[in-house]
Amino acid sequence: MPAIMLFFSDNMAPVHPAVLAAMSGANAPDMPYDGDALSQALDARFSALFETEVAVIWTTTGTSANALALALLCPPYGGILTHAAAHIVLDECGAVEHATGGARLLTCAGEGGKLSPDIVRDRIARLGTGVHHTRPFALSITNVTEYGLVYRPDDVAALGDLCRAQGLALHVDGARFANAIARLGCSPADLTWRAGVDALSLGFTKNGAMNAEALVLFDPARADEARRRRKRAGHLLSKGRFVAAQLHAMLEGDLWLANARAANAAAEPLAGAAGARLLHPVEANEVFLRLSPAEAAALRAQGFGFHDAEPGTARLVTGWHQSAADVMPFAAAIAAL
Amino acid sequence: MPAIMLFFSDNMAPVHPAVLAAMSGANAPDMPYDGDALSQALDARFSALFETEVAVIWTTTGTSANALALALLCPPYGGILTHAAAHIVLDECGAVEHATGGARLLTCAGEGGKLSPDIVRDRIARLGTGVHHTRPFALSITNVTEYGLVYRPDDVAALGDLCRAQGLALHVDGARFANAIARLGCSPADLTWRAGVDALSLGFTKNGAMNAEALVLFDPARADEARRRRKRAGHLLSKGRFVAAQLHAMLEGDLWLANARAANAAAEPLAGAAGARLLHPVEANEVFLRLSPAEAAALRAQGFGFHDAEPGTARLVTGWHQSAADVMPFAAAIAAL
Amino acid sequence: MPAIMLFFSDNMAPVHPAVLAAMSGANAPDMPYDGDALSQALDARFSALFETEVAVIWTTTGTSANALALALLCPPYGGILTHAAAHIVLDECGAVEHATGGARLLTCAGEGGKLSPDIVRDRIARLGTGVHHTRPFALSITNVTEYGLVYRPDDVAALGDLCRAQGLALHVDGARFANAIARLGCSPADLTWRAGVDALSLGFTKNGAMNAEALVLFDPARADEARRRRKRAGHLLSKGRFVAAQLHAMLEGDLWLANARAANAAAEPLAGAAGARLLHPVEANEVFLRLSPAEAAALRAQGFGFHDAEPGTARLVTGWHQSAADVMPFAAAIAAL
Amino acid sequence: MPAIMLFFSDNMAPVHPAVLAAMSGANAPDMPYDGDALSQALDARFSALFETEVAVIWTTTGTSANALALALLCPPYGGILTHAAAHIVLDECGAVEHATGGARLLTCAGEGGKLSPDIVRDRIARLGTGVHHTRPFALSITNVTEYGLVYRPDDVAALGDLCRAQGLALHVDGARFANAIARLGCSPADLTWRAGVDALSLGFTKNGAMNAEALVLFDPARADEARRRRKRAGHLLSKGRFVAAQLHAMLEGDLWLANARAANAAAEPLAGAAGARLLHPVEANEVFLRLSPAEAAALRAQGFGFHDAEPGTARLVTGWHQSAADVMPFAAAIAAL
Repeated sequence: MPAIMLFFSDNMAPVHPAVLAAMSGANAPDMPYDGDALSQALDARFSALFETEVAVIWTTTGTSANALALALLCPPYGGILTHAAAHIVLDECGAVEHATGGARLLTCAGEGGKLSPDIVRDRIARLGTGVHHTRPFALSITNVTEYGLVYRPDDVAALGDLCRAQGLALHVDGARFANAIARLGCSPADLTWRAGVDALSLGFTKNGAMNAEALVLFDPARADEARRRRKRAGHLLSKGRFVAAQLHAMLEGDLWLANARAANAAAEPLAGAAGARLLHPVEANEVFLRLSPAEAAALRAQGFGFHDAEPGTARLVTGWHQSAADVMPFAAAIAAL
Repeated sequence: MPAIMLFFSDNMAPVHPAVLAAMSGANAPDMPYDGDALSQALDARFSALFETEVAVIWTTTGTSANALALALLCPPYGGILTHAAAHIVLDECGAVEHATGGARLLTCAGEGGKLSPDIVRDRIARLGTGVHHTRPFALSITNVTEYGLVYRPDDVAALGDLCRAQGLALHVDGARFANAIARLGCSPADLTWRAGVDALSLGFTKNGAMNAEALVLFDPARADEARRRRKRAGHLLSKGRFVAAQLHAMLEGDLWLANARAANAAAEPLAGAAGARLLHPVEANEVFLRLSPAEAAALRAQGFGFHDAEPGTARLVTGWHQSAADVMPFAAAIAAL
Repeated sequence: MPAIMLFFSDNMAPVHPAVLAAMSGANAPDMPYDGDALSQALDARFSALFETEVAVIWTTTGTSANALALALLCPPYGGILTHAAAHIVLDECGAVEHATGGARLLTCAGEGGKLSPDIVRDRIARLGTGVHHTRPFALSITNVTEYGLVYRPDDVAALGDLCRAQGLALHVDGARFANAIARLGCSPADLTWRAGVDALSLGFTKNGAMNAEALVLFDPARADEARRRRKRAGHLLSKGRFVAAQLHAMLEGDLWLANARAANAAAEPLAGAAGARLLHPVEANEVFLRLSPAEAAALRAQGFGFHDAEPGTARLVTGWHQSAADVMPFAAAIAAL
Repeated sequence: MPAIMLFFSDNMAPVHPAVLAAMSGANAPDMPYDGDALSQALDARFSALFETEVAVIWTTTGTSANALALALLCPPYGGILTHAAAHIVLDECGAVEHATGGARLLTCAGEGGKLSPDIVRDRIARLGTGVHHTRPFALSITNVTEYGLVYRPDDVAALGDLCRAQGLALHVDGARFANAIARLGCSPADLTWRAGVDALSLGFTKNGAMNAEALVLFDPARADEARRRRKRAGHLLSKGRFVAAQLHAMLEGDLWLANARAANAAAEPLAGAAGARLLHPVEANEVFLRLSPAEAAALRAQGFGFHDAEPGTARLVTGWHQSAADVMPFAAAIAAL
């Protein structure tokens, strides 16, 4: 399928050539699971990136990274505060319930998929506190949000402060964390542990990898439990070097940021063309706009592919592989509606 | 690490060039998850291979295939009869318990990892039948067994008959199923559904793939539940075409059988050299032999890598990539002990 | 605590003397678990009551009855449609998630805790249908609802029709089912299986028993699984005859209906006194009314005990043991506000 | 059924009159769940009994007490070392797996159901230590054992030392703990926390209560989690005062010890009559003896009821309610074989 037509999701993108090359380069026999040199080097590499000692658990899907993170942070009898539109709520078939042994997602509303301390505080206040009621143990936010908004370091820090005050752990679903960093230009540390984040699902698959995500634990003491839970969940690949190789390739020369910048840039012409149709500010690589069924049909008739969102609206997502030339025809078609 | 030295496990082997090429060839943008053409073609391809209509669920690890299969075949309050040395018992960190919601593994002894109807019948007879006791719902066997023995079609059929009589489902952990077929020369159908098998974890990763296993369901009506459980377990990769591509490449021109034959052949010189040291007949690509600590140390001092098994014994595993020339030095070293 | 003061909940009520007497009468040595004659007679007795063959699983709490019922009706990867104010949502600490292995409660809004086919149909329509999304397998309603409203046979039948059309099982949390029957004067059959109900948690503890609930399964074929799940959940009491004795005593001479009528009648003076303050029609033994914090404090200062509901409102619950004379002082105090 | 004939199990015994009286005496309206005065007084009462601050969680079955204890002490990905004949292994339908979310029972052999440090140490040594293998987190022993043997304080302390050295928690299934104390004459403290026990399932139902067990937590900080897990498992009865009343009645005037002494004493004539037929020393209220099928049939033909154990053996259990006069006819019949 030509890149010019595909705006369904960044998870349809190809694998970056440097990632493919790194995988081919890892093809000598080596120790299985995560005993290979590439896997063993990840903690140090991500510790350097985050300017603190972290433990990194590679996995192949964002769903497994999220579920594993939350299984570490919330017991079966607890609850996880999150946005009602979060991927863990709507798109993971109950993976969090499965991994945690039945913890409950306690959902909150919030414009553009974004939560504030007031929203979370209010939700907590409406929960009972006795043994009859689900007690929250964690907050999970998504950065970039499901509607393409970006939490800034002070946004996260305000939530981090609330979490500490309430005894909650803080998890970030960072399927598009790279796009947030690319947008903000801040350090990964400022957007995570310095703001009170305990665990980050750091996505690479949407951003140029084949099937590689890094669960970053800012408390390395959690690593043993995480590694056992990963194995138990069937996620410890026997030739793990091919996952680790992807992560190294994505970090090499900041490829992850270059790719994210490219994806963000590709969204700009679409945002400009959407103009007053926009439902949310475009802060990363997702564009939500009003589009009547007839308009959507007209665009599809021209060959453009994208998903509907709420009735009368659509979601367009750009990828690292789409150049301005790839995107301009779609922008023009939108502008011409 | 040079192939000449590595006899730890076939999961250390490289990826076959044809598989890597197929993966590179799948790198155009495509529909995510298993919506791509390669994934969509798997049911038909494996149905042809098995001469009956099957549903195929790709996944990236044998552990996840086994756990998913058994979650389909056994409820949380049930039990799964299996060998005490089975991979699901010893090497999966409780993945079956996790996937099933707490079903129990009911273990049996059996020479060389192999179970017979008598063994299984006797184990069932010692289980209570009331609600206080765990009721078995499935039998899981491993073919090739963990000790390198092969179940023949009539071995499996005898167990299949017992299962039907007892109301048990029959699962095969086929991490080395290719090696069994290569050894026996029978059809995959004869070794599975014609012998009463309900689900097969068909491994490719040890046999030349990177991270691709096929859970083959001989009752395609189970596929919807299987696909939901796969997603829920975090095993639905967003770029699934790269897994499907591996499976197609492995079947193409019967590469899977050629590789398995090569691995089996590589074990023969070792078996010959081991001679009276052998603990089990060598029927596939695993060699178990008596080896004193001093002898093991002597071999390791020469650079050969392998795992200890029970005290005073060792396990040697050969891979698809090892030629006779790769193996002969090790055979000679063993013979020289 | 004197009955005259207690309007917190009907679960504070004493045990009816006939129930206590029946328990004492069961004190000879007998077969353990549910092997005693009283337990063994329950299926027949409830089958007569419901005019169809049912299987009855006794248990000691409504939470365990609900959780067990839903574990039978919904797989771990499924969802259960229910009202957002349902007891299973707000007051059972995730018991359904625990018993089912992580199924999700899919909540709906509805005036007075009551659901209609339109509400449920609309909720289903907003759920995705693919493997990424939680697929509903059951609907759970509460009759009497948490706000004291009663579903009539045709209300239930309309939901039953919808469930059959959608492939959903239908569960009724009947913690106050007796109060609904007492109010409606219909047959238990009309309010359950004739209206499409698959399982009923039939409560007796709030209505005069000590700790006895009956999970009524309208498909007796589910009984073996239910009995195994009850044992596994630790709910198979070894001296089960003392639970069975309570159920028999409650049915004897329709004590369950007499008690429910008494509780309903006790609510009437309170409803009359509340007048325009009422938030919902009073159809059973619960009264919800507007009450400012100052008014609530004034009533409490007079010794009356009751729970707050939403801010500025209160919930009053009457029990089988409260006579008009017990209730009139409270009614007068409310009227005097 | 006359006491003279029943030797199946002590769980068939009647309820002691003092317990029934205490239950009747608790029948005034009171705060629900465990908010009543009787429930609230349990921590203090059991703290006095155990000479240290404990938290007590009442529940109605031994299975639920064991499962709750082990859910506190072992994570889902862990294992619990225990005897192969333990009640949690053979008689609870996987309750531990359910409550823990899939932890595994790691069974050991041991004469008479009894474990020693050597046995446990050897079992641990045979477990792998990596993430592929189930790591033990707890040891669960039964005192009195399933074969009627008693662990003495120094037996328990030796296991407690091992547990501390290995990082394991120590649980005691004390369904017949009273019988052990009655036999040994030691303090409950010496047999539990002073010997390194973390949690005790202290049974009363077999010993004169109706349905009351006490989970005693020697680290009261675990109580909040325990209370939430109890609720979630559906075990928080709404009229909890009737369970608490039983526990108080059993402790009052050391009724629990008097009853246990009576049960132990009732076993002595049977043990004497069995003589050389005995399989294990009789240290409490259980007698295991060799009995051919013909002999068993002969005894049953005389009206005596008991369970078979292993082929060619039988188990006789005496209860608190059986006097010497009740037991002598059976003893005579055995002696006459």
